[in-house]
Amino acid sequence: MSPVDTAAVEAANTAFYEAMEAGDFDTLSDLWLDDTEDQRISCVHPGWPVLSGRGEVLRSYALIMAHTDYIQFFLTDVLVSLAGDTALVTCTENILSGGPAEDGAELGPLVGQLVVATNVFRRAPDGWRLWSHHGSPVLAESGDDEDDETTA
Amino acid sequence: MSPVDTAAVEAANTAFYEAMEAGDFDTLSDLWLDDTEDQRISCVHPGWPVLSGRGEVLRSYALIMAHTDYIQFFLTDVLVSLAGDTALVTCTENILSGGPAEDGAELGPLVGQLVVATNVFRRAPDGWRLWSHHGSPVLAESGDDEDDETTA
Repeated sequence: MSPVDTAAVEAANTAFYEAMEAGDFDTLSDLWLDDTEDQRISCVHPGWPVLSGRGEVLRSYALIMAHTDYIQFFLTDVLVSLAGDTALVTCTENILSGGPAEDGAELGPLVGQLVVATNVFRRAPDGWRLWSHHGSPVLAESGDDEDDETTA
Repeated sequence: MSPVDTAAVEAANTAFYEAMEAGDFDTLSDLWLDDTEDQRISCVHPGWPVLSGRGEVLRSYALIMAHTDYIQFFLTDVLVSLAGDTALVTCTENILSGGPAEDGAELGPLVGQLVVATNVFRRAPDGWRLWSHHGSPVLAESGDDEDDETTA
């Protein structure tokens, strides 16, 4: 794997989360691929159904940003896999976030969340851009529990 | 988009779920890409952390199959997106499953589950094969709830 490609993909992945942290909707929009006839972006937020196409996906981010006063992502277990012009990144999002305070205080209560994500990027003329984001809550510690009945 | 490609990707996606339904571990193994230096398969079962590489991924399927006496997937909202030799499929898995009965009866109680999946396939010499599967439970009805505080 080209270390240059890997670094560029990791940088695009980091930029995605930094745009969320900054509440920078324009930068976030630019990081997502444009839809074409063959190719539509898709996004799954933790616990949500699938959102397809730039309209649905970007509207969801505008909503989330409107309801999030503070959010910080501590990324761990970042793994990049590369095939041709597609890159697949898996990572653990250790999230600390806070909504608006209800009593006029500066910030609502902070909430911690453990989410795992699969992010798919395509190489575009202006760099790696997001094709798909799928985030989901981690409810089990590992796949090693013999009694776990969770399915595919 | 070539209708031939779309049909082939949909067939690979269906074959993946049929292998699960049949408890056919060998067919399931063949449907997953081989790991290379650049490219490792990854898998997230609903509520699980990320599993990476054929060892972890296939072991998880062996475990799930060992604990599942009956599983049926009713797929809805199947959407195929295509770019070069990569295909991205999103779908809703309406799952009906049952574990082993504990009292000697034929089947344990059936459980319904609503899961959304993002499945990434690569075109290989012998057809489309899985690079990544990410499944997650649907906890909210839609992204339209103004009060939803869920994050990226």
